[in-house]
Amino acid sequence: MQKKLAAEFLGTFWLVFGGCGSAVLAAAFPEVGIGLLGVSLAFGLTVLTMAYAVGAISGGHFNPAVSVGMVVAGRMPAGDLAGYVITQVVAAATAGLLLYVIASGKADFAAGGFASNGYGALSPGGYSLLAALLMEVVMTAFFLFIILAVTTPGAPAGFAPISIGLTLALIHLVSIPVTNTSVNPARSTGVALFAETAALGQLWLFWVAPIAGAALGALVWKGLFESRADPAGIVPAE
Amino acid sequence: MQKKLAAEFLGTFWLVFGGCGSAVLAAAFPEVGIGLLGVSLAFGLTVLTMAYAVGAISGGHFNPAVSVGMVVAGRMPAGDLAGYVITQVVAAATAGLLLYVIASGKADFAAGGFASNGYGALSPGGYSLLAALLMEVVMTAFFLFIILAVTTPGAPAGFAPISIGLTLALIHLVSIPVTNTSVNPARSTGVALFAETAALGQLWLFWVAPIAGAALGALVWKGLFESRADPAGIVPAE
Amino acid sequence: MQKKLAAEFLGTFWLVFGGCGSAVLAAAFPEVGIGLLGVSLAFGLTVLTMAYAVGAISGGHFNPAVSVGMVVAGRMPAGDLAGYVITQVVAAATAGLLLYVIASGKADFAAGGFASNGYGALSPGGYSLLAALLMEVVMTAFFLFIILAVTTPGAPAGFAPISIGLTLALIHLVSIPVTNTSVNPARSTGVALFAETAALGQLWLFWVAPIAGAALGALVWKGLFESRADPAGIVPAE
Amino acid sequence: MQKKLAAEFLGTFWLVFGGCGSAVLAAAFPEVGIGLLGVSLAFGLTVLTMAYAVGAISGGHFNPAVSVGMVVAGRMPAGDLAGYVITQVVAAATAGLLLYVIASGKADFAAGGFASNGYGALSPGGYSLLAALLMEVVMTAFFLFIILAVTTPGAPAGFAPISIGLTLALIHLVSIPVTNTSVNPARSTGVALFAETAALGQLWLFWVAPIAGAALGALVWKGLFESRADPAGIVPAE
Repeated sequence: MQKKLAAEFLGTFWLVFGGCGSAVLAAAFPEVGIGLLGVSLAFGLTVLTMAYAVGAISGGHFNPAVSVGMVVAGRMPAGDLAGYVITQVVAAATAGLLLYVIASGKADFAAGGFASNGYGALSPGGYSLLAALLMEVVMTAFFLFIILAVTTPGAPAGFAPISIGLTLALIHLVSIPVTNTSVNPARSTGVALFAETAALGQLWLFWVAPIAGAALGALVWKGLFESRADPAGIVPAE
Repeated sequence: MQKKLAAEFLGTFWLVFGGCGSAVLAAAFPEVGIGLLGVSLAFGLTVLTMAYAVGAISGGHFNPAVSVGMVVAGRMPAGDLAGYVITQVVAAATAGLLLYVIASGKADFAAGGFASNGYGALSPGGYSLLAALLMEVVMTAFFLFIILAVTTPGAPAGFAPISIGLTLALIHLVSIPVTNTSVNPARSTGVALFAETAALGQLWLFWVAPIAGAALGALVWKGLFESRADPAGIVPAE
Repeated sequence: MQKKLAAEFLGTFWLVFGGCGSAVLAAAFPEVGIGLLGVSLAFGLTVLTMAYAVGAISGGHFNPAVSVGMVVAGRMPAGDLAGYVITQVVAAATAGLLLYVIASGKADFAAGGFASNGYGALSPGGYSLLAALLMEVVMTAFFLFIILAVTTPGAPAGFAPISIGLTLALIHLVSIPVTNTSVNPARSTGVALFAETAALGQLWLFWVAPIAGAALGALVWKGLFESRADPAGIVPAE
Repeated sequence: MQKKLAAEFLGTFWLVFGGCGSAVLAAAFPEVGIGLLGVSLAFGLTVLTMAYAVGAISGGHFNPAVSVGMVVAGRMPAGDLAGYVITQVVAAATAGLLLYVIASGKADFAAGGFASNGYGALSPGGYSLLAALLMEVVMTAFFLFIILAVTTPGAPAGFAPISIGLTLALIHLVSIPVTNTSVNPARSTGVALFAETAALGQLWLFWVAPIAGAALGALVWKGLFESRADPAGIVPAE
């Protein structure tokens, strides 16, 4: 379990430091900034790379919503959940802190939103609470559905980190303008702590919506598809 | 069959919600928008990710033109076609509706073209009907040719979703300026329903051209290459 | 041989139509154009996708310089070279023609350079003949070196189209400003025929430099590395 | 050993010529430049492509910090280190020279920073020495950690160059604004020689920080995870 939590710590740190770091430091760099496309790829690549590195150790969740979905889908014992989630949040906050220290190492630094998530006045494009809620639920539901599908026994070995990482990139390509894209309560928490805006006051949504979406995605996967692995109900699915 | 249609529903929903969603929400976001490159990658990644997730269940068509091409190539029974196509169109319209609800969740929303396809006055770059027709036929023909080739028995296992998804990304990189890129009648229908423009009046082209192209690509594959598999069973392949 | 040439025709057509098409139609589209990054990815993806589709049939050269390098490296009989090269050039010119027909389907069309290659006044960034020559030789040499290395017996199966396609993308990321990037005489010829500039007068360089570079890359591979496959000189390398 | 050094020469040359070349020639090309996103992908693709090509020969380090990390992790004999590092630096300087010759082949050329690394006044975004130090140490530590993890026995064969190359791309997406991204002392040296700025005076940091980070990453991997491989040979691995 110690190795699993170490893997989750490093993976979640990498997700927040790399994904939010690209947003804070490079997205709007004058003339040659990486834009929302670059930030989307950065988030996706944090998961792709660390899932290859430590996915075999901890499952490579790096995200409390994913851990909840894994429990709902019966892929992880419920007793492991608290340790995973606490580790992920601590790692995200640590990454947020290091990012803050680095980002503030220039003369004209202002934290601003610091890559935090938001709705209404804190939505990058000014989208409402309802739009934000719908987007986060739907995106996290598909995220979990795809994760469960591509890691099911019989799926082509070795490709799962590619499809999972690129799903996260795709989610960002669509939803950054709406909520700045969470689908990950730890990522939202880790940077909200350092935002100059009222991001902490909106943080509840980025725990509720991703976790609800993750549970939904896990239930759809289990209900519609996983029974195929055991049509007669005799042989255990795993 | 029920699972196949569920897979096609989810995959087509994802293609339209992710691909068209990136176009409607993020392409022209001020300063840091993802542009046509980001939209192209988003469309490609919807297919890459869902083909890994449910390709083994339904074949991962998510597109009436692909389903037609599969029938022409002898890869799917003609009797399954209607169920696939109806499911795809319903999924695309559902995705279009959800995208509309989310996109309208901001003060200054205007649906405009809503990522619909068009020619002439509705072509993003003002291209003629003939140019649009040629582009859609050629692109869908190559799309089907590549799909059939990379899923033929003997092709390296596990890589097909990568090549198919990236083919769709490439198609968009070239042809968005001409028709906003369809190659998929369901995708065209799902958003045309919500466009403020006359997109519905041009929708016929984005059924005719992709389906004609898909049939052409399937015939080229069968005629020129598949015979190497040697149906008569006499000459060894290659 | 007929199937091999059909495969080379389709692959080279796809490379020119997709790669040059993205440059002509989408690179400089107002506000949301794909830029040189999008064009680079488009060229890379044409080769990645078609190498998965027909690489097992023809080798997936789609490029006279690659075919020459294959002969130099002893991977293809010299007697096959003429057929490959003629097919590639005809395919490239056919793709150039179709692209011209589509691109001219708008009111304010002007062919301009039509994605042709050039040096001096016809270099996108105004680079000299010497700079252009060096760039094309070095890039094609590495291109062939990598192609030969990743397709050598014992290389991980199935990954070669990824590394080869992404090598072509990388080559474009660096060298479009210098020569508009050839490394492929067929690609250069196919669009030079339709350029309004004096591109045809500079076409010789984009036959000489890529072919010289390809031969160089093949010799480096053979001289430095391939002997490892047969240290004692007894067992045939293939 | 001769083949190993030849492989390291070619790979490091490719990394500097391709990565720094994209920065010098294409990043800020008017209107359609590839930006920091394109440069990030170029660096990543140099390693991805050459690791597929010659990774099996030399390990595919192309970077003195990686070679140091490999020694620290016990993956390479210390006696090989000097040869690797000298070869990498010579290759990087050769690539810098060729790039300089090509880049100066236009009328209005000015070397400027020539893609060199820096902090303070020479940081692209004006970041302090401390921020630069922290960024380079953390990034190189994660780089080594991921390299060691994805090349550990039992990792899915064939995918390592993808995850390693894309890790380097991700590192650049985040850190170009801070230091122009080194994580590679050879890359820093190879272009600092040609910069018009005082880059050589800051070069020490881009030897110290990446090497310290690499050692740290290797120790974390060994300390926390590699013990699962169980050197005592008693308990079966996981």
